[in-house]
Parts: sequence; structure tokens; C-alpha cells
Amino acid sequence: MSARYAHRAVVFTRNGEPASVLSTLTYPALPPPPPHSLNLKFRLSPINPSDINVVEGVYPSKPEPTKSLSAGQQLTESVCVPGNEGLAEVTDVGEGVTDIQKGDWVVMAKPQAGTWSSARTLGSHEVIKLDKGNISEVNAATIAVNPPTAYLMLRDYVNLNSGDWVIQNGANSAVGQAIIQIAAQQGVKTINFVRDRPDIDALKQQLTQLGATHVFTYNELSDKSFYKSVKELTGNNPPRLLLNCVSGPTTAQLTRLLGTDARLVSYGAMSKQPLAIPTGPLIFRGLKAEGFWITGRWSKDSEKEEKQKVLNAIVQMELKEPEHEIVTLEGSLTDEQAGARVREVARKIGEGKYGKKVLLRIEDPVTNG
Amino acid sequence: MSARYAHRAVVFTRNGEPASVLSTLTYPALPPPPPHSLNLKFRLSPINPSDINVVEGVYPSKPEPTKSLSAGQQLTESVCVPGNEGLAEVTDVGEGVTDIQKGDWVVMAKPQAGTWSSARTLGSHEVIKLDKGNISEVNAATIAVNPPTAYLMLRDYVNLNSGDWVIQNGANSAVGQAIIQIAAQQGVKTINFVRDRPDIDALKQQLTQLGATHVFTYNELSDKSFYKSVKELTGNNPPRLLLNCVSGPTTAQLTRLLGTDARLVSYGAMSKQPLAIPTGPLIFRGLKAEGFWITGRWSKDSEKEEKQKVLNAIVQMELKEPEHEIVTLEGSLTDEQAGARVREVARKIGEGKYGKKVLLRIEDPVTNG
Repeated sequence: MSARYAHRAVVFTRNGEPASVLSTLTYPALPPPPPHSLNLKFRLSPINPSDINVVEGVYPSKPEPTKSLSAGQQLTESVCVPGNEGLAEVTDVGEGVTDIQKGDWVVMAKPQAGTWSSARTLGSHEVIKLDKGNISEVNAATIAVNPPTAYLMLRDYVNLNSGDWVIQNGANSAVGQAIIQIAAQQGVKTINFVRDRPDIDALKQQLTQLGATHVFTYNELSDKSFYKSVKELTGNNPPRLLLNCVSGPTTAQLTRLLGTDARLVSYGAMSKQPLAIPTGPLIFRGLKAEGFWITGRWSKDSEKEEKQKVLNAIVQMELKEPEHEIVTLEGSLTDEQAGARVREVARKIGEGKYGKKVLLRIEDPVTNG
Repeated sequence: MSARYAHRAVVFTRNGEPASVLSTLTYPALPPPPPHSLNLKFRLSPINPSDINVVEGVYPSKPEPTKSLSAGQQLTESVCVPGNEGLAEVTDVGEGVTDIQKGDWVVMAKPQAGTWSSARTLGSHEVIKLDKGNISEVNAATIAVNPPTAYLMLRDYVNLNSGDWVIQNGANSAVGQAIIQIAAQQGVKTINFVRDRPDIDALKQQLTQLGATHVFTYNELSDKSFYKSVKELTGNNPPRLLLNCVSGPTTAQLTRLLGTDARLVSYGAMSKQPLAIPTGPLIFRGLKAEGFWITGRWSKDSEKEEKQKVLNAIVQMELKEPEHEIVTLEGSLTDEQAGARVREVARKIGEGKYGKKVLLRIEDPVTNG
């Protein structure tokens, strides 16, 4: 049986299927943080699709491999701690940190910080403080990626006023639901597309309750007269923003609903097919297609002040908690047991058995020394 | 037999196949031009693919219908004169025109000016003067659309320095050949793609002689090791500009040869398929896709001074004349004969029988009065 220390992290040493390559590791108590740094205890860390891609080795950004998860530890082999997003509580504050106190809630400004762990030391500039009193633990743990993606795509590409229209596909994704809510709060109307499914009426109702103006399926769109009626919905104020996380041929149809000088902003490709765009709107109607990557390019190019401002705005919006399930790695588990648990969760996610966001709560192990 | 007047135009009264709907019309001599206007005699007017689309009614911009081609004429039915591009000689100058003289060569600043005619009156702001001594008649007649499309796409999207790389498909199109020549003059290297064909070696040689750095076929690209070798050509200075007039699935492959923050600029879609773009480069590598339309958006948004500057620069470049055939509508023909001739030319173009640019030389009819 492996030694058990004060803290625990999920790790991988080589890329592959998460259900095969993930394990857990315990490590010694963190020493007091160096100047301008913080010790953090993670409370909840989501398992996002991009985290899975990181472990598989197919995501363009990666966590840094390390041989030491705590100052007192020297591992024989480098490990990577996955986890890009998460809510942590500050447990200790280094010299020179003035804007953050012990007990504060923070989320990550640094991408791939390794949130699937119970405790880490990070620079104070690598986190963003949240207004602890005004947001739930689940909303805080899931605030840093999906809601700002929605918020910034609505803010930064087209000047939207109340009464304007936005089109999106994959509308019941986490980002899609945030888009619906944020647009509705801004008086912006949304035309939302989802795949057909047995419970389509329930889904339409659910998204409408979130604030969706219209919800349609791609199948419906393939009918010519229906297509025309969708086009008529927006009258002489046609949508100039199309938010895409699906790609493939259906996206080409959606671009035909857009007005002149529209923007097609992609943040995903769930169909795993290339994005299809009719060339005519690009040449003759000023359509532009680009992408948005919150944890990559946006994060790199934006100052911490801007990130803080965006998160503050989102906290104010009081978005609905995403549907979720919390998976706890209890402190009583051995590393073998905790690792098996994580791999089982990864396997179930791979098989699509959750259908909702999984959040890890990694408890400090019950120490044996 | 219809009356024969001083001038002749090709016209259509309804959209349709050019080989069916085109006819010719003669009209009285132009009166002296009003203030700030010019009388023009057209010397050569290309038949461009977009002109065909205009006649068919599938092009987004159209000539204005008119009931009078000359002040002395009143037609019972409105007619449209096609022709967006052409070289004209100034035959008379209205009051207040200071920058243009009788005998000057001009091309059109106004889109869809109706160049398939022997003589028209236009505002002096609707034409751009060329430096008559420094350019051939054929180059002048074909300077206003294709060469500026090439020049501006190379100038306005990515900051290109000598030694940088550009990729294009449809490389043996008129614009493609201009891209090769202009890039070569600027020290910019080009990777050119064309369709496979029986005489591919001759075509490769021809484009290389124009200045192409490399010429490949789409078939070659589908081979993985070949693809890798193309990627290696550009080393650590990957192309950031892809110029597209083909669209369809091959374009998706080409985008993978691009570096970060690249631009995919489309000016055509000869495959008649939607543009396919992998979503990854949009999201993770800052790829942006847009379109360029010289006779539409660029022309509308640009001052005459800018157009003049661009054409002056192109005259300086002494581009090779496009392969062409001049079709003369002799002055001795009746309208019936001239109309039949135009429809026959249109039919041959529709059947792809020319394989080179057709230029109309519409002579003033031999008058009968």
C-alpha cells in the first residue's frame, strides 16, 4: 500500500484513454506559500470535455509535467495533473499578496493549473477572486470557462442591441444554455438549434424556460417552407451573429439565415466534421468566420483585470446552475481505490452515461502519519 | 430590317441563358456630354464569368434597366446593357471636367456600367484614366477586375514581406495568374494548386514561368507523405494567407498547411460546393475566413483616388496579357446578324469551347441615314 500524505491529486504520466491512464497520488502538506503566492484547497473541479482531450493528448494546451506536487516531495517520474477549471478556497497567503485573503474563493486565471487535486500552491496573479456571498459552489466551480465563452462571444464580435437576433447551434450545451440566459438578460433574441431526439418537446420547453426565443431542430430546417418561415421571424432585422459548436453541413444552412456583415464564431465542432460555409455570403455579403478559445488565445491575450471584470459581470447575472453530479473522492480511500474510482468515472463519461456535468470533490486523504 | 443608328449595344430584356436572351440594338449618336460627363467609345470589353451570371440573373449586382441609350432615343421596353469591364477612349468631354481629355483611355470605376456597347455617356467620376502609353489594349481592357483582386488580396489581409509564402488554389485562373506574377514581383513565394489534367506538365511549366514557386495538383495533396513534404517547404515560416476560388473539401486540406493567425480569403467557388474549413484552426490557431468582392463591396467602399492608385500600381507591374480571343461585331452587320453572333459566342462560352478570355470589339454600325 502506498504512503498516504496530506493531499491528493489525479495524475497521468502518459497520454491515452482517461479510463486507462489516470491514477491518483498523495503528497506531503504544502509548506507556507512563497511571496506573492497562495496555498489553495480545491472545493469542486469540473471534468470538462477539453480535460478529457488533454489526457488523450489531442488538445493544443497541456498541463506542465512536474516531479513535485509539494515542496517536500521528489517523484521518480514526472506527472501531469489535469483540470483546467475549479473553485478553490485560499488557505494561506504569501508575503506581498494584498488583494486576496485566507478564506476567499478563487477560480483559475492560469489555464491547465491542475485543478483535479485537493491542494496546490499558485501565484496570486494566477487566480481570480470571486464574490463568495453571491454565487453557489457549483456555479463558482463552473464559472471560468463556459459562461465567459458565452458572454464574450455575445460581446466582442457584433454590436448587439436589445431586440437584435442571434443564432446558435448545439443550444443545449453548457455554453449554449449560458448564451440563451445572457442574451435574454440583454434583451437579445435567440434562435436555437438542437438535434432531434425522443424527448425534443421537453428540451424545447426547458430551453424556452431559460429564455430561448425559438428552439428548432436541424431536421426542421431542411424543410424549405419551414426555412422560409424561420427567415421571416427576424423580418428586416436579420441576425448578424451565428455561434457554432457543431460544424458540419447544417452550419452552411444556418449561415443563409444571416444578414449582411455577419460573423460566424465557432467554439466547438461536436459533429467532428469540417465547418461548411457557402462561399457566396463570404464574398457578396461580408460574412466572416473565425473561432473563439477562452482558455487559450483569449486567456493569453487578456489582462487579469479584464478577466476579473468579466467574471464579476457573470456573477451578477445569477445564471442557472448547470445540471451536474458531484463525485467525491473520499479521504478514506487509498490511492488504489481513488484511482480506480476516477477511471470508472472516466469510463462512464466516455460512454455518455452521465448526460450532465461531473464535478470532482477531492478530499484530503486521511493521513497515516 | 431594324433601323441602324450611330452606335450599337448588346442588350437583354429578361434574365436567362445568354445564348437565348441576348440581342443587339443600335441607337442614335450621343449628343455632347452634359457637364462633368464624358462621351466614350469602347475599344474592347471582356466577357467575364460574372457577366454571364448577370445575364442569368444569379449575380448580386445588376446593370440599371433603361429606355434610352442615347438622348435622342425612347424605347418601348426597358433594356439592360451587360458588361462590367472594358477599355474606352474619350471622344468628348463635358464642361467642368479637368482631369480627363479627349483621346484619353479610361476604364470603369462604376460597376455594371454596360461596357458591351460601342459608345456611352458616363460621369467623369465613374471612370478611371489609364496611362495610355504604358499598357496594351488587351491589358487595359482586363485591368479593372482580376489584377486588382489579386493585388488587393495580397496587400490587405496579411502583412507579407519578401520571402513569405502564400497558398492559392485555382492557380491558373485569370486572378490566379495575376497573383503568381504580383507575388513574384514582391518576392513573395507561392504554392499553387490546380486540378489534375492531361497537359498538367505543360501547365506547371507555364505557371512556373509566370513566377510560381511551386505548382501541385489536389490529387498530389491527398498523399500523406507528399502533404508532409509540402508542409516542410515553408519550414518555420508557414504561409499565413490562403486565396481560394474553388471551395469544396480540398480547401479544408489546404488550411492545414497554414501557420497561426492566417487568413483564408475567398473570391470564387468554382467547385460549386460549400467551403469546408476544419474547425480546429479557427478556434486554436486564429484562422479567419472571409471573402473579397472587387466589383461589389470593395468598389463601393473605396474612393476613386484609391482605385486610381491601385490601377497605377498594376500598370507599373506590366503583367502578362491574359490568353484571349477578340470577337468583333463588325459595323456592317445588321442587328439581327450581330445578335445571332453574340448568342453564338455565348453558347460557345457556355460549352467551354474557348478556354481563354473572350473580348468584344463592338464597332459602330455603318449607318444608313
